[in-house]
Amino acid sequence: MNFSSDNSAPAAPEIIDALRRINKGYQPSYGTDEVAEAVQERIQEIFESATARVFLVSTGTAANALCLACLCPPWATIYCHQKSHVEEDECGAPEFYTGGAKLTQLSGAHGRIDPAQLEHALKTAAPVGVHNVQRGALSLTNSTELGTTYNCDSIAALAAKAAEYKIPVHLDGARFANALVHLSCTPAEMTWKSGISAVVFGGTKNGLMGVETVILFDEEMAWEFELRRKRGGHPLSKHRYLSAQMDAYLTANLWLRLAEQANAQTRYLASRLQSLPDAEIVHPVEANMVFLALPRRLHQQALTNGARYYFWHGASLAGDPQEKIIARLVCNWSTTENDIDQLIDRGFGR
Amino acid sequence: MNFSSDNSAPAAPEIIDALRRINKGYQPSYGTDEVAEAVQERIQEIFESATARVFLVSTGTAANALCLACLCPPWATIYCHQKSHVEEDECGAPEFYTGGAKLTQLSGAHGRIDPAQLEHALKTAAPVGVHNVQRGALSLTNSTELGTTYNCDSIAALAAKAAEYKIPVHLDGARFANALVHLSCTPAEMTWKSGISAVVFGGTKNGLMGVETVILFDEEMAWEFELRRKRGGHPLSKHRYLSAQMDAYLTANLWLRLAEQANAQTRYLASRLQSLPDAEIVHPVEANMVFLALPRRLHQQALTNGARYYFWHGASLAGDPQEKIIARLVCNWSTTENDIDQLIDRGFGR
Amino acid sequence: MNFSSDNSAPAAPEIIDALRRINKGYQPSYGTDEVAEAVQERIQEIFESATARVFLVSTGTAANALCLACLCPPWATIYCHQKSHVEEDECGAPEFYTGGAKLTQLSGAHGRIDPAQLEHALKTAAPVGVHNVQRGALSLTNSTELGTTYNCDSIAALAAKAAEYKIPVHLDGARFANALVHLSCTPAEMTWKSGISAVVFGGTKNGLMGVETVILFDEEMAWEFELRRKRGGHPLSKHRYLSAQMDAYLTANLWLRLAEQANAQTRYLASRLQSLPDAEIVHPVEANMVFLALPRRLHQQALTNGARYYFWHGASLAGDPQEKIIARLVCNWSTTENDIDQLIDRGFGR
Amino acid sequence: MNFSSDNSAPAAPEIIDALRRINKGYQPSYGTDEVAEAVQERIQEIFESATARVFLVSTGTAANALCLACLCPPWATIYCHQKSHVEEDECGAPEFYTGGAKLTQLSGAHGRIDPAQLEHALKTAAPVGVHNVQRGALSLTNSTELGTTYNCDSIAALAAKAAEYKIPVHLDGARFANALVHLSCTPAEMTWKSGISAVVFGGTKNGLMGVETVILFDEEMAWEFELRRKRGGHPLSKHRYLSAQMDAYLTANLWLRLAEQANAQTRYLASRLQSLPDAEIVHPVEANMVFLALPRRLHQQALTNGARYYFWHGASLAGDPQEKIIARLVCNWSTTENDIDQLIDRGFGR
Repeated sequence: MNFSSDNSAPAAPEIIDALRRINKGYQPSYGTDEVAEAVQERIQEIFESATARVFLVSTGTAANALCLACLCPPWATIYCHQKSHVEEDECGAPEFYTGGAKLTQLSGAHGRIDPAQLEHALKTAAPVGVHNVQRGALSLTNSTELGTTYNCDSIAALAAKAAEYKIPVHLDGARFANALVHLSCTPAEMTWKSGISAVVFGGTKNGLMGVETVILFDEEMAWEFELRRKRGGHPLSKHRYLSAQMDAYLTANLWLRLAEQANAQTRYLASRLQSLPDAEIVHPVEANMVFLALPRRLHQQALTNGARYYFWHGASLAGDPQEKIIARLVCNWSTTENDIDQLIDRGFGR
Repeated sequence: MNFSSDNSAPAAPEIIDALRRINKGYQPSYGTDEVAEAVQERIQEIFESATARVFLVSTGTAANALCLACLCPPWATIYCHQKSHVEEDECGAPEFYTGGAKLTQLSGAHGRIDPAQLEHALKTAAPVGVHNVQRGALSLTNSTELGTTYNCDSIAALAAKAAEYKIPVHLDGARFANALVHLSCTPAEMTWKSGISAVVFGGTKNGLMGVETVILFDEEMAWEFELRRKRGGHPLSKHRYLSAQMDAYLTANLWLRLAEQANAQTRYLASRLQSLPDAEIVHPVEANMVFLALPRRLHQQALTNGARYYFWHGASLAGDPQEKIIARLVCNWSTTENDIDQLIDRGFGR
Repeated sequence: MNFSSDNSAPAAPEIIDALRRINKGYQPSYGTDEVAEAVQERIQEIFESATARVFLVSTGTAANALCLACLCPPWATIYCHQKSHVEEDECGAPEFYTGGAKLTQLSGAHGRIDPAQLEHALKTAAPVGVHNVQRGALSLTNSTELGTTYNCDSIAALAAKAAEYKIPVHLDGARFANALVHLSCTPAEMTWKSGISAVVFGGTKNGLMGVETVILFDEEMAWEFELRRKRGGHPLSKHRYLSAQMDAYLTANLWLRLAEQANAQTRYLASRLQSLPDAEIVHPVEANMVFLALPRRLHQQALTNGARYYFWHGASLAGDPQEKIIARLVCNWSTTENDIDQLIDRGFGR
Repeated sequence: MNFSSDNSAPAAPEIIDALRRINKGYQPSYGTDEVAEAVQERIQEIFESATARVFLVSTGTAANALCLACLCPPWATIYCHQKSHVEEDECGAPEFYTGGAKLTQLSGAHGRIDPAQLEHALKTAAPVGVHNVQRGALSLTNSTELGTTYNCDSIAALAAKAAEYKIPVHLDGARFANALVHLSCTPAEMTWKSGISAVVFGGTKNGLMGVETVILFDEEMAWEFELRRKRGGHPLSKHRYLSAQMDAYLTANLWLRLAEQANAQTRYLASRLQSLPDAEIVHPVEANMVFLALPRRLHQQALTNGARYYFWHGASLAGDPQEKIIARLVCNWSTTENDIDQLIDRGFGR
């Protein structure tokens, strides 16, 4: 009955097997291992981009902040959703890595940036020139922090606005696979074909121990990225253990299968939650998260019965028992139908 | 015949086993897993410090730079050996994390800071007050980048100088275990009892996949460290995989056994290298590295025969074949007597 | 008919005289000139604080950013009005000097922070600990960017909220004197007696060539301030020319007289503007600025007739001639009744 | 008898006159005043570069650090003399503005970088790629901190080395005029014709109140410079007062005349000092400074008799009275033959 986070789940068994296999003999360090090159080639195939440059790091925060530092100078601003991870959950890592850029918070329903807001923000930026922070970069998240997705047309439309003002676009794809299997598009369509410059292709939340792949579609940025990554202390000396995880992830479509499992269970979870009395699902369920409004007393009951999940920003169990508060329930590759049945039947059931 | 780096070696099998064991069910993320607390307690025992605060990160560069950022303000300088890792091999990570501190390079034989140089540098610092970079921190490395060690008295003497000028002392212990087993002292003696404020207790070069433990003897620094670590993008969401590695490392003295193996093989390697014609070992062999001066033609022969190791700063095979150049040969926990015999007999032998 | 900015006005003649007087013989450099100490003592008297530390810099942006860097760590946020100078007009100087802090934009009528918004922002900050940017500092501006003032009670109420969450308060007093003469309170009441930690006591907009005085009520911050100022390249070697300006400013209440003149003319300007057809003054006139909504065609006419002033954020003359747009008209110490009469009679008159 | 620093001297009377003249009516702010453009044009003429971009700032530290930040990325190093102002006297301002670049200290006789050392440093930089700080920029100072000059051939030779490694060259010209009048070359020859990319053309030490002119020969850098300057808090709102000073400085060759006066008196000073018993002038006298080795007892006598000058790095009056220690004596535009005669006759004379 643990629906707290995809970060709380274990790694897929294929990953541990891959680590054991790579754990033999000597391998050159810092990204020059044999498997690293294979991973880059595989990513180039999957993303249909023969010149894409690929870098593995251990955390999403690092991957995002390093990309943004390459895309946005210190005197500029990053346009992002007010509920995005870069704005809310990274303790200012983008500010640190960029050398003090701003983040301009945009809103928009269901975790998606409202195109009109982006347009307005871009249009009215820097009216008095050097006195203002300049336009820097656009940052999108797919799937979003609210479990929804941008389809390729939406991405392309937002990226076109950015292009009009000559700023690049970053995609936080911590849950890239969950979005992709929902959208039934190709990785290329969801990224560079829609105008994305740099992608964080997440693995950690989808069954890895800890690997995020940065994909730069602009080769010219690669050396700067490497230097920034080094200064950030992110290159692993025994890099083979990142390579092996990502290699296994890309083999036999494991990444897609894990995301499909998570998404399918999430749909099942949503359908069962919807049947609870007074339940209201507040955002479209398009990836692996359900946002559920329910009276406090029912949440209390579930937690008492052993369920585990988080309330959303600021909500707490203290208060009127009849008042509805919103919780986030997350499925992952290892979630089973039985877990969900238990949540409904045992958690909410008595 | 691979003596290129302890970073090129695999992880000990106990580590992969530990990863498999921890890879079950749900665990809270970002350092709140069950094992993380056990690791902190174990470190507190080993270092005889009930209040030490313990943090796990994936790389030595991150561990060093984060410590230094907590110890040294942006307007100050870090006194370090000119051949130290923080000065030479981190692409300015200390400068990045401190917000632009300086590194003052000291020299001294065999990779050890000359106390007189430290004293002089401290004494003559900041003669015109606000116009000069201020005294910041002292950074030591044990074992050093040249395979030697500081004994506890030497550490205490250097730290006492630092204390006189009210600056804290950082210990880069990427090869902490190799130094410790050579010195036959306790971890506490080698650190806080000798005046060290913060330690990077390395695991990666000694048989882990990638974990360095930061130990802060000043509790007050802990929250700042956590915030800096987060901004650096270093906390792993699935932190259990760092905890499990470090836990296995500390179990049944694995860390000491692995270091003893590496050091013992290094002594054997040195003894065998010494018998080569014209060989000269240029630094005392006290940890897991041998620095060997040998005519270029012999190096050439070994490499041709399949040996792998690096030449030291700037040296290259191009040049007079009779001229001696210096190479670094590194042993690790997995190095065998047979590897060494092959190097001597097959590598240099024909 | 120039009402564009108090920055466009000349310096008071007393200031040029003071420069000439100080321009003799040798003076120690970098703030150790004779007059510098006299200025500090005079400020201590005026602010009734015997331990206040005083620093002179050439620009308001530097003064603000240096103060904020001393008050707010890199991983925290500065609460400020969305229309404040630190947020809108400094190209990210606070972000640069703090090493990447955030600015949290609050709103509130007439350029004053709404206390309820501050309370809410403080209360809901950092819900998940290390993952969030922390509470850093509160920044107020008096008089505000919209020509209004906070009275001492309002300042005290906002500062009390900040104190509850243990964060310090910065006062951007680029137009300190204009606020003070309006409020008829003492400098001490408007600052430390109301909970302010650090003040930028502006001179440039009120008749100096270019001097802003930073006043730190916490002596302990002084050395850090000096080091940050030096790293920012702000200490003038021939500091006597800053001292002399500030000394003249504080002599015989020149600073108060200049601000009274500017405020009095502003009241006269407002009264005359109010009589224009369709004129609407959109913010209370409490300092030296009038914000005036007027049909575009009237603005057009005034500009054509030689008047000079700016339209407010984003407004432009292009558009429906009958539509009202907002302009900012600024008086300064040198503005005369005749200037205003000309604006009304010649500018808007034909 | 004050020979402490050219920073302790007053401004030339022409400068105060210029301030008074410009102190009338309204002028646009932040560098858009009428005179600012005239200054840029005049600099373009003097430097024979129609596309040079010109910026005025108040301090040399700011001017140097801003230039270096435009020339050198955070992950690179600035090659400079170990006695240069950027290394020794700016409390890490270059590190702050560059976002954490290094400074590589080179030595060389009489304050001039030894070309062989530069070559060696460039050649051996970054041997292991991303792990090392990269080559960034070369910084020269003319005249040097030891009162000597680089002639144009020397500059060209050093700049050619830099060009070989594709790094730009910064010239700290805090005492530009003093060097130029000694060398009898043109400003163009001493700068871009010899390979300089960016110049700090100093005025403060040569008779201004406080203005340094940054000259960028690469137009493309101008916008970045402006943004960095703004973030640093350096643009003066009432910029006219910088423009007016620099305009007067460039009018009727005032800048050359002031430097000639200072240099001529320095030659006279040197000739008279040389006649003192046991006096030794330790660096060639080519600008406005004399470095004088003399027994402590004679220094003591001069100071007792009212002379004012500084001892050089670390030297102090405490010690053997017969031992020679080195002092720096600085002349400036206002130094008279009488001042020097008094120093010799009254200071050292009794």
